[in-house]
Amino acid sequence: MKLVIVGGVAGGASAAARARRLDEKAEIVLLERGPDVSFANCGLPYYLAGEITERSKLLVTPLERLRKRYRLDARPLSEVASLDLAAKEVVVRDLARGTEYRERFDKLILSPGAAPRLPGVPGQELPGVHTLRNLQDADHIMARLKAGARRALVMGGGFIGLEMAECLKHRGLAVTLVERNTQVLMALDPEIARPVADELASQGVEILTGRKVTAIRQRDDGPILVEMEDGDRRDADIVIMGIGVAPENDLARGAGLALGASGGIRVDAHMRTSHPDVYAVGDAVETPSVVTGNHAVVALGGPANRQGRVAASHAMGRADNLLDNRYRGSQGTAIVRVFGKTAGITGASERMLRRLNTPHLTATVHPAHHAGYYPGAEGMTLKVLFDPATGRLLGAQAVGGAGVDKRLDVLAMAIQGGMTVYDLEEAELCYAPPYGSAKDPVNMAGFVAAGLLRGDHPQITAADLKRRLDAGDPPPLLDVRTPAEHARGTVPGAVNIEVDALRERIAEARSLAGGGPLVVYCQVGMRGYLATRILLQHGIEARNLSGGYTSWTRA
Amino acid sequence: MKLVIVGGVAGGASAAARARRLDEKAEIVLLERGPDVSFANCGLPYYLAGEITERSKLLVTPLERLRKRYRLDARPLSEVASLDLAAKEVVVRDLARGTEYRERFDKLILSPGAAPRLPGVPGQELPGVHTLRNLQDADHIMARLKAGARRALVMGGGFIGLEMAECLKHRGLAVTLVERNTQVLMALDPEIARPVADELASQGVEILTGRKVTAIRQRDDGPILVEMEDGDRRDADIVIMGIGVAPENDLARGAGLALGASGGIRVDAHMRTSHPDVYAVGDAVETPSVVTGNHAVVALGGPANRQGRVAASHAMGRADNLLDNRYRGSQGTAIVRVFGKTAGITGASERMLRRLNTPHLTATVHPAHHAGYYPGAEGMTLKVLFDPATGRLLGAQAVGGAGVDKRLDVLAMAIQGGMTVYDLEEAELCYAPPYGSAKDPVNMAGFVAAGLLRGDHPQITAADLKRRLDAGDPPPLLDVRTPAEHARGTVPGAVNIEVDALRERIAEARSLAGGGPLVVYCQVGMRGYLATRILLQHGIEARNLSGGYTSWTRA
Repeated sequence: MKLVIVGGVAGGASAAARARRLDEKAEIVLLERGPDVSFANCGLPYYLAGEITERSKLLVTPLERLRKRYRLDARPLSEVASLDLAAKEVVVRDLARGTEYRERFDKLILSPGAAPRLPGVPGQELPGVHTLRNLQDADHIMARLKAGARRALVMGGGFIGLEMAECLKHRGLAVTLVERNTQVLMALDPEIARPVADELASQGVEILTGRKVTAIRQRDDGPILVEMEDGDRRDADIVIMGIGVAPENDLARGAGLALGASGGIRVDAHMRTSHPDVYAVGDAVETPSVVTGNHAVVALGGPANRQGRVAASHAMGRADNLLDNRYRGSQGTAIVRVFGKTAGITGASERMLRRLNTPHLTATVHPAHHAGYYPGAEGMTLKVLFDPATGRLLGAQAVGGAGVDKRLDVLAMAIQGGMTVYDLEEAELCYAPPYGSAKDPVNMAGFVAAGLLRGDHPQITAADLKRRLDAGDPPPLLDVRTPAEHARGTVPGAVNIEVDALRERIAEARSLAGGGPLVVYCQVGMRGYLATRILLQHGIEARNLSGGYTSWTRA
Repeated sequence: MKLVIVGGVAGGASAAARARRLDEKAEIVLLERGPDVSFANCGLPYYLAGEITERSKLLVTPLERLRKRYRLDARPLSEVASLDLAAKEVVVRDLARGTEYRERFDKLILSPGAAPRLPGVPGQELPGVHTLRNLQDADHIMARLKAGARRALVMGGGFIGLEMAECLKHRGLAVTLVERNTQVLMALDPEIARPVADELASQGVEILTGRKVTAIRQRDDGPILVEMEDGDRRDADIVIMGIGVAPENDLARGAGLALGASGGIRVDAHMRTSHPDVYAVGDAVETPSVVTGNHAVVALGGPANRQGRVAASHAMGRADNLLDNRYRGSQGTAIVRVFGKTAGITGASERMLRRLNTPHLTATVHPAHHAGYYPGAEGMTLKVLFDPATGRLLGAQAVGGAGVDKRLDVLAMAIQGGMTVYDLEEAELCYAPPYGSAKDPVNMAGFVAAGLLRGDHPQITAADLKRRLDAGDPPPLLDVRTPAEHARGTVPGAVNIEVDALRERIAEARSLAGGGPLVVYCQVGMRGYLATRILLQHGIEARNLSGGYTSWTRA
């Protein structure tokens, strides 16, 4: 058995180690275009920020160890130029010697990764204008930073763009972030991304959303000039292009392997391509969403590593049975830290469900990450999306401080298990004051969602309320917070009756409601829930504003 | 509808709020023996430690709010003396006035809680010898501490005992902890509890396990003298008895309601007792384990709160349908912080599975809580228990620093969903360097467990290895760590062949193995896994020591 693996990072390295564990006698050739195999690409922004101080820490498994421990024929600076599937050979360029040779395989695993997308604007190739994919890119950026860069412009407000904006600000640069869309973090719904943008702004990062870079020029006097469509411009000493990645599908395309509509290589649950002896893994393949079934390229480290295991297992002849591990699809679980905030997602976003016309409901809560009476409780916003018919969880997003990652992971597991919002109600999670609450945020989201499905708790989302106000069709609005809270800011046109006085003043509420349903809100939705229950039982139609005034301020 | 609730903490308070949300017109009477309703009993140790500085923070929902917001007829200092189920009345003692009266009910919810067990030794009633159940107990302890207590003795090494040991040490007292069993935290398996005991010892708490207190005396000269069975004795200015709790079942027993073998009140999935109009919730009831089906009293805040909701929903006439929430059983998810360590459990322990003769396998890993290349990674030990036939997860335990609570919660969700170790392999959890790894500890536990089930990776547990050594029947032992690691400490009798040299020295390994299987180990099990694979494929029977030398040192 001779296994050839193209690409020595994440998926490729995992596949190689797995293959060796399963077969001591196999010949395993690991071909990597760059000088480094098995490096930690997710660590690059933290290395540039100075949080990871030693470059060598990013070399997860040094070449020597791969060779000695796993007996891999690991060849860096070896670029695969083409595949000859008829002959079962790959054509390799030895980048050090400038020679070319052919390497036979019995099984082939492609792990070429994804390349940073370029904006396609004049000047994108200038020195000082960078993408960030590997250690060499990081070296170039580091050199520019050390040469005294003071102003940075980051194109793209996705995960990498935000990590780089934080990193550069952390190093003391003035940072401008330009994003074409109307929000940062397009993977997240707008109200979840909003607090992240606010955090960036509060740290002094200039955020320009809905703006398009049209040209990058080198000024004679030193700085780079970045021009935008609306005529606005910024000087920068360094520009980072982080507008996304595209699957490296050239080899696959050249060899006639099937590609998906996304441009990713098509694979089955064993990560086999359209050729039975060729597998593909990682950022270059498209996989189905476990929630929607929609195929997409998911460029994430966790899936890449697991796909590498799956491909190697199958390539090494593991029987096609239930015990065999197979790739079940991607959830798109992703997380980002931006200064003091954490934001993330698992499963489908509301934007994605809308695009696919998938029926869904949402529940949003704003709980503390642990018992409020224990010092240090940090706030979070947790949103779950679920099927209106069955309550099955379709996605979850969260933003806040400590404990956001925990709730997303719990909900990721629930989605994987096909669980429902009724299951969230009954989840039995760790409770001691430093860790959680007797009613965990996950339970709270379940209570609200299940209450909605049971009809106990009709609601209106902040987005829907905003649409009605924008359309000049405001519903009657009742603010059930205290007069002091009401005075600090409220939805325009709302009448204030504190929840504790609502029963005495029910006649006022009834006359306020008039014909249409009354929209009720408090700060986060809890008192609004009780108020809604009181109103409904007094025969007054009412909808609770989901997530309360807190959600409103983000709509 | 008139609902009477006995007990105003956790389950009782949750039931009252839920009942009001469902029914505005119901008369709801909340009877609480103590002066406080809805207080945070889980916060008491942190209040005593001074972490929670204001006593008022422990009053989760003040009496006035319960009355105003929820229109509850909330009556503190109202002890229910007996139940008259034939008349559907409770007999109430007004503790303030010393009077007694009867209160009629349509539905009754019992939430009496559990009382601290007493050791049954002379002197347990002395001043300065305390239990900790409510704010009044905390007040007494606080008074004693403020009066200048310098030496404390804590009886019982369970969750409360350890929290109190930490609390008292935190306040500067010399602390001795006495536990009858051979380990602290009997809810956990010994190797998971061990690092907690080590942490206590390293913080200067004296731990006496396998020791029994036989008498407590007041010395004439001031301190309390605690005597142990073996003649050992300690002076203390304060003694805390934290040896567990017993369900308060007197009312139920007196009224002829069915009790379980555990002494807890018997209830169905709607929390109904043997009387159709009487419900019981919280620490006084027994519930089935979702894993083993075994009935037990589970004295935890999360279940109590959810049970209160379930009981109130049913009592308020919620239809008995699929959307109706019901209590599905307890997982026993519990966590404790002891100085810098966190330890916890969800599902069944190995001790419990052994006692019930439930077939099970275990997998133990010792990963870092996030990417090792990102600064601040803290170690943890994660153990999963699973069904040998199906791989279904039966339980999980963890101990370590940051991130322990997250993995336990993820695994709690997996157990609730009936998921398997194959599912853990494929879990897609949040990965960015500050939060996790591309292969999360949960994935790692899945890899090891599934590898075991697939036969890739035979193992021996540290406990089994120890039994063989203790029995004078040592297997041949191979330490595949580096010579430097080997020199720092190893299992007696082991031969050292570094994994990277194993292939060259395979003949040595073969002759070492002799007839029986070779037991292989490294530091945490990863290199041992590869070595096991190498040996097996060279026809040498081998078992990897689960969790490696790290697990061995705890056995």
